[in-house]
Amino acid sequence: MFRKRDNIKEVEEGKFLYPKFDKKGLIPVITMDFKTGDILMHGYMNKQALKKTIETKEAVYWSRSRKKIWHKGKVSGFTQKVKEIRIDDDQDSIWLSVDIGNGASCHVGYRSCFYRSIPLGKIKDKEKLEMEFKETKKTFDPKKVYKDEPNPTKL
Amino acid sequence: MFRKRDNIKEVEEGKFLYPKFDKKGLIPVITMDFKTGDILMHGYMNKQALKKTIETKEAVYWSRSRKKIWHKGKVSGFTQKVKEIRIDDDQDSIWLSVDIGNGASCHVGYRSCFYRSIPLGKIKDKEKLEMEFKETKKTFDPKKVYKDEPNPTKL
Repeated sequence: MFRKRDNIKEVEEGKFLYPKFDKKGLIPVITMDFKTGDILMHGYMNKQALKKTIETKEAVYWSRSRKKIWHKGKVSGFTQKVKEIRIDDDQDSIWLSVDIGNGASCHVGYRSCFYRSIPLGKIKDKEKLEMEFKETKKTFDPKKVYKDEPNPTKL
Repeated sequence: MFRKRDNIKEVEEGKFLYPKFDKKGLIPVITMDFKTGDILMHGYMNKQALKKTIETKEAVYWSRSRKKIWHKGKVSGFTQKVKEIRIDDDQDSIWLSVDIGNGASCHVGYRSCFYRSIPLGKIKDKEKLEMEFKETKKTFDPKKVYKDEPNPTKL
């Protein structure tokens, strides 16, 4: 399924899969809501997760905080049905388009993990740089959904 | 401009910027064509690149292959005008929406780096997994545009 990377021309212009996993065995993944076009999350897959995602058509990641294979939605119920998978020119990143119905993707409770926008341009008083919330209402209550699961966010 | 990460609640729910740069000093960046909604590329920024992108409203990355700050489009002319920057829940990835006009983002010559789609589902003969080209015509001729620049793709 995944071939050995031994020819740049083939990696860039060929029809076969030569995914590049980094030193930790991971490839970064961009996950898009295929209905709204919003980016939902940025995650990682290892070889097994990418294979499972292709074969089962449900997004499976590698959780760096929990250090294990992560079938997204197994705890929360918010699974991601895969509509399309694309790979980039040098085959070291993945773009997933997924259907999450009326669900959510963010452990904080928002639909997208990217709920804050950074102001652009030069700011005189940099201490005052304040982001804008693009989602103002949470889709679910993380306390109810995740109960005693540890928070994956690390400082 | 970038604050010290010392409180998970603040990182997740606050209005201030606490970006997380990895051990190499980098944060991954998803770059979207704001007109079409397509993902153009997946890149990385260091602290300086993120600051420059916010202040100049043109995408500046860290080139891992060339190991230097990379003002996208400086060689090719295909600069990216930043329309919006978002950051995710734990502030360890960036979503850029950019205007590239009628330009392109991929060094191979396509508009998007993600020009190939992976077939979904179980395949009996895995050797035969073949991707589909979603862009069939290149936007520019990389030989003319990049001349003697080395190819950034590494095996």
